[in-house]
Amino acid sequence: MSSQQHRVRIFEEGPREGFQSEPAGIPTASKVELIEALAEAGLTEINCCSFVNEAKVPQMADAEALIASLHRRPGVAYNGLWLNRKGFERALASGVDLKPTLVTSASETFGLRNNGRDRAGLLDGQRELAQAYKAADLTSAAGYVFTAFGCNYEGDVAIEQVSTSVDQLLALAAEEGMDCPVVYLCDTIGAASPARVRELVGRVRTKWPSLEIGLHLHDTRGLGLANALAGLDLGVRRFDSSVGGLGGCPFAGNAAAAGNICTEDLAYLCEQEGLETGIEIDKLIQCSLLAERIVGRKLPGKLKEAGRFRRSTTH
Amino acid sequence: MSSQQHRVRIFEEGPREGFQSEPAGIPTASKVELIEALAEAGLTEINCCSFVNEAKVPQMADAEALIASLHRRPGVAYNGLWLNRKGFERALASGVDLKPTLVTSASETFGLRNNGRDRAGLLDGQRELAQAYKAADLTSAAGYVFTAFGCNYEGDVAIEQVSTSVDQLLALAAEEGMDCPVVYLCDTIGAASPARVRELVGRVRTKWPSLEIGLHLHDTRGLGLANALAGLDLGVRRFDSSVGGLGGCPFAGNAAAAGNICTEDLAYLCEQEGLETGIEIDKLIQCSLLAERIVGRKLPGKLKEAGRFRRSTTH
Repeated sequence: MSSQQHRVRIFEEGPREGFQSEPAGIPTASKVELIEALAEAGLTEINCCSFVNEAKVPQMADAEALIASLHRRPGVAYNGLWLNRKGFERALASGVDLKPTLVTSASETFGLRNNGRDRAGLLDGQRELAQAYKAADLTSAAGYVFTAFGCNYEGDVAIEQVSTSVDQLLALAAEEGMDCPVVYLCDTIGAASPARVRELVGRVRTKWPSLEIGLHLHDTRGLGLANALAGLDLGVRRFDSSVGGLGGCPFAGNAAAAGNICTEDLAYLCEQEGLETGIEIDKLIQCSLLAERIVGRKLPGKLKEAGRFRRSTTH
Repeated sequence: MSSQQHRVRIFEEGPREGFQSEPAGIPTASKVELIEALAEAGLTEINCCSFVNEAKVPQMADAEALIASLHRRPGVAYNGLWLNRKGFERALASGVDLKPTLVTSASETFGLRNNGRDRAGLLDGQRELAQAYKAADLTSAAGYVFTAFGCNYEGDVAIEQVSTSVDQLLALAAEEGMDCPVVYLCDTIGAASPARVRELVGRVRTKWPSLEIGLHLHDTRGLGLANALAGLDLGVRRFDSSVGGLGGCPFAGNAAAAGNICTEDLAYLCEQEGLETGIEIDKLIQCSLLAERIVGRKLPGKLKEAGRFRRSTTH
């Protein structure tokens, strides 16, 4: 394997997707403390906040203030999320590191309930965003296909729907003259299994051999890291995850929705598989304990309880 | 694959290894209720109790009373554990279903600390047990190699030590005229990784092609089901697990020791991989919730929180 193939890129979702699932009121300073500790632990891509309607998502009302008060480390991207042109314009003005995305939902119903738009409407919105990206001299975007592994409203999502969704994102990017070198398949509601990961990654890769595939996994049913392993085995090298397993998906129609897979557990899996993440896992465990103090409860990640297995001991 | 290759045998450890890790005082009737519910959910091999020194392990002091009060379902083995001849004789007298075992520790230090004997001493004890088995007309035993993936005291355990341990168990069985058709590789302290599972299962299988391999896994560092997946991928079809992830290993020198992998999460993984367990997962989830009520706290299993993903919905 080349060094590139040994390198796993982990996009940290905790401060954004995680805190967005918590009750409002987490102090901006606490968020900043966690984000800076994550960067110190070696995370180089951190989703820090959302530029969304603060009436609907008060947890993210401090997006601009948060970005303004970060002490940034060189080489770290402090990203934020937006859902529409207005949000993107706020992001542009805030000084956040910009990670342009183009999203769609493989499940029509999820798109309607989560974003209030059917897939055609979602794609129209993405086209508008692509045009805004170009106007800001951003020519490359990451694609995200929500509910690629199933939907709480529709149940199974046919693999053809996922394939069509990828096709539509790539076509939209091409029409707007943008690159879309990576598409994340999102297990938005924790329906994935290793078999399904293999099937779906295999299908997308066969159809688009030069497209990089990322996985956005939730550990809703205990299979999160098994699903990640299935992806790693197939050469997937990009994952979204959340420190401590912080988070959930409050809009997924499932009270038991769980957070993303746990960043430190994933990083430990990668390390054990001989793959590099650039993360100092012991420091990341400290971040996870900090996140627990911030939200005031135990988070589901396991590694922070036991620590890494010490392969050699002195006694 | 033959139907045999699609069948995964899950040995339920919750009532034994799980309750043994809890404070003493769980009523026998509660243990019986859980065991009977597990059998009703389709578990066919259940470790119910230990015949050990009740001064040291008061949690298991009711072993005989528990076995006497079980309403047994046909086709279900209600097993118990013993560590020496005295315990085996108690088990024989109790009417428990007998699962003869021959055990050793790949780590010398773990054997000394957990069982108070070095490996030579442990093997002497197993020889005495093998002779007692034969005297009771039991001619087949399952082997267990503790700390096959690492040891809290010694760190890494060399693969040669594991190989030697298997060799010694098989030789002992052969010398005593017993069969030993299956050997469990035990991740006693949660040091395993998918890479290590592959390496170790591969090594043992290459050396003893007709020996069946089982895995006894603990989810100490979040890799439990990823490790199980690595085993399943290699055709391992026997696992020890614990309802809800109940348990721990109080003698393993690690305060953060976690329970076995969670039975219902494992059964769900098997189901998703197209493998049969004979378990009704929805009923097993109810067992897990019962186990939580019995111990009075949340257990780490995930599936019980969200329920199975419903592949088709009616709305």
